Amino acid sequence: MLHPVVLSGGSGTRLWPLSRKNQPKQFLALVGERSLYQETVLRAAALPDAQAPITVCSDDHRFMVGEQLQAISVDSGGILLEPAPRNTAPAIALAALHAVARDADATLLVMPADHLIEDEAAFRDAVAKAKVLAHEGWLVAFGIEPDYPETGYGYIRRGAALGEAGYRIDRFVEKPDLATAEGYLAEGGYAWNSGMFLFSAARYLEELGRHAPGILAAAREAYARASSDLDFTRVDEAAFKASPSDSIDYAVMEKTDRAAVVPVSCGWSDIGSWSSLWSVAERDANGNRHEGDVISVDTKDSLVRASERRLVATIGVEDLVIVDTPDATLVARKDRVQDVKAVVDALNAAGRTEHLSHRKVYRPWGSYDSIGVGPRFQVKRIVVKPGAALSLQKHAHRAEHWIVVSGVAEVTCDDRVFDVHENQSTYIPLGAVHRLRNRGTEPVELIEVQSGSYLGEDDIVRLEDVYGRS
Amino acid sequence: MLHPVVLSGGSGTRLWPLSRKNQPKQFLALVGERSLYQETVLRAAALPDAQAPITVCSDDHRFMVGEQLQAISVDSGGILLEPAPRNTAPAIALAALHAVARDADATLLVMPADHLIEDEAAFRDAVAKAKVLAHEGWLVAFGIEPDYPETGYGYIRRGAALGEAGYRIDRFVEKPDLATAEGYLAEGGYAWNSGMFLFSAARYLEELGRHAPGILAAAREAYARASSDLDFTRVDEAAFKASPSDSIDYAVMEKTDRAAVVPVSCGWSDIGSWSSLWSVAERDANGNRHEGDVISVDTKDSLVRASERRLVATIGVEDLVIVDTPDATLVARKDRVQDVKAVVDALNAAGRTEHLSHRKVYRPWGSYDSIGVGPRFQVKRIVVKPGAALSLQKHAHRAEHWIVVSGVAEVTCDDRVFDVHENQSTYIPLGAVHRLRNRGTEPVELIEVQSGSYLGEDDIVRLEDVYGRS
Repeated sequence: MLHPVVLSGGSGTRLWPLSRKNQPKQFLALVGERSLYQETVLRAAALPDAQAPITVCSDDHRFMVGEQLQAISVDSGGILLEPAPRNTAPAIALAALHAVARDADATLLVMPADHLIEDEAAFRDAVAKAKVLAHEGWLVAFGIEPDYPETGYGYIRRGAALGEAGYRIDRFVEKPDLATAEGYLAEGGYAWNSGMFLFSAARYLEELGRHAPGILAAAREAYARASSDLDFTRVDEAAFKASPSDSIDYAVMEKTDRAAVVPVSCGWSDIGSWSSLWSVAERDANGNRHEGDVISVDTKDSLVRASERRLVATIGVEDLVIVDTPDATLVARKDRVQDVKAVVDALNAAGRTEHLSHRKVYRPWGSYDSIGVGPRFQVKRIVVKPGAALSLQKHAHRAEHWIVVSGVAEVTCDDRVFDVHENQSTYIPLGAVHRLRNRGTEPVELIEVQSGSYLGEDDIVRLEDVYGRS
Repeated sequence: MLHPVVLSGGSGTRLWPLSRKNQPKQFLALVGERSLYQETVLRAAALPDAQAPITVCSDDHRFMVGEQLQAISVDSGGILLEPAPRNTAPAIALAALHAVARDADATLLVMPADHLIEDEAAFRDAVAKAKVLAHEGWLVAFGIEPDYPETGYGYIRRGAALGEAGYRIDRFVEKPDLATAEGYLAEGGYAWNSGMFLFSAARYLEELGRHAPGILAAAREAYARASSDLDFTRVDEAAFKASPSDSIDYAVMEKTDRAAVVPVSCGWSDIGSWSSLWSVAERDANGNRHEGDVISVDTKDSLVRASERRLVATIGVEDLVIVDTPDATLVARKDRVQDVKAVVDALNAAGRTEHLSHRKVYRPWGSYDSIGVGPRFQVKRIVVKPGAALSLQKHAHRAEHWIVVSGVAEVTCDDRVFDVHENQSTYIPLGAVHRLRNRGTEPVELIEVQSGSYLGEDDIVRLEDVYGRS
């Protein structure tokens, strides 16, 4: 059976300020209403013989993965939590071990969570061809037929044909300069290395053991000692961290003599930058892509995104990327968007947080958004999902006022438990042990006014937590 | 004695999104920490023999004028409220009538509230020269020595010299095209019409009566029937509205045979657009002017303003104006900023409010800022100035929760009056007659959570108001 493996380990900041460390590209709805991760999962789930997809992700993103899966009603084949990033070879090893434990003959379809594929039929055809080769013992890479001399990708040069389905891989080549890339296109037989693979899980583990035994050993131990935590499989931290960090390309694909490539032309993009998003997005007659509340006057070939409750107006500009979020706005020339990294580095060096998290923060129980701050107070808008509960907690430095504006909140405050309805309020004194719970079927929305000398998120003692965070 | 007259009637939107109808250019701190209005008042107050300045402004801006005067501790010579805009000739007539009632020999120095003058010494010299001419009965216009062929201003051509002090005015000319403006510079003897004037108040009224008797009659009647309202002189609405609308240039200066010009070169700018603000502002080595939290990478010759609690990052752009406010951001090519008007027109046509007022709204008692809205609720951050009180009021469609985060609020709620301290809250039920007052010496800051089916500002019945608004 085919076990899709969605690699969601990326924490890219190339789409800053929309992507942040806590909410990287794969979890954003960049094209359409679903996130790239959700689109990837749905694409996988629709394949013939596909089993429930396995996700490998960072521990930091586990609740976002869980929530995004729930929102599209797709059964999970497991969410494997990486305690630390170790590149793709160890991540795929975990998925392979997880799959063979359930299905000794498992075939893995490995897909990064943050790619766009516009022509799903072409992709399905390529998967069918790759399955033929995998059954013959080949480790198959999907090679994207290049339509221009891109210098940002690695290339795969094909060798001898393997029947109708694909080719042996002659060699992998690093990101070329423009002249070399142009040569590749002129010569033919080269494809972009998409980062998508298909092979037997057992064969992958076998080849990994041959060419990178340290990675296999670490992954085996980390997986053997894994603990189950809600829907998540949390592999052993020490064991996993002991693994060498390496990509599947270097660790396996370039070394094995059973590497094959299936060329495909399926409207693929890795949306590696704002300019590549602009180039794949639908645009108006002036070449503009607008999202949100935008008024543009004589504006051309630009990507403009306004965030909620905000207007962006443009006059007489062209070839710009303008991305507005609640706490940061980027204005960049479209051909310079790779330098977003310089901004992120500057934020990091200054100890700032605009590259780490959005003003609105997602939690397993819902979300909060800091809508106002002052010298000794902070105002948060809090949403608690139906059936969810915050941890039983207390604060050393702040009191909290809660005003319920929608739904019915069950409030615990020291030894009292009571309901607070819409247009009612309650007060949590400094030091009181408290909890907020939504027993209803609709979200609870409330305004929290914090008052105190210190208002950091780290002033919290969690006494109990249904999400294993205490 | 010299009576400065500050004309603050402008409601320009050319600096949108920073300038709004409720807070036009003259009240903004565009260069330095004080507003252009405050700078104008201080410049006038520093002149020899200057009396307390008279302000003529729109009724809508009276509290802002009062507050900005108070903030710079300058005594007011009167704040005359125009019930409707009627251009400069009637406004100056009101000021002249106000001045002669106090000082029959009053000399008026008329200054628009929204101009910048960098060389105050040169300006003072020009005022001294103009006073000499005014004492001889001349109506003096200040003409700015042009340093480039600007096509956005009217020009004054000088005639025969009047001693050392100035010249007769040969003629006024309309905004020229570029070739004509270049001709003026080459020919010499032309100056920009600055909109600043100096003359005897009695002489102005005399000439106005001769050349525009309808304006004089209306102004006389409006002023005679004026009522006093706190620090404000509210002229009669019907009488003032009956006045023809005309500029001092057309109504008087172009018609009188006693028009003189004093040329001056004093670093004058009317800051008529974002590009002119950029050109007068101090800039860094890359030609950029940054205000607020800005990170720029390879950015040149741009004006970038970030609003509070927000970051603006720029990459690889040049010659842009980027102005960020809490509810709207403008990105415009610097040579296209005159098209801000097209955006404002679009907002107006769509029945929107982003050109009318900022999210933070100033009131005579302080300010409020709508920091969050939802389907049946709104969250406001409210500041009440020391000694100030909101009106005694009630709402038909909303209840209010108040949480005090700074200071001590005196709250009236139906028949109870009580204090609410920092980190305390109270509840105003729907329909309750209530008032908020600050009896202390520090500002009171509170968070208001409104809950109800309709949350518009017009759901208010004012039963009493210390500012005459009930």
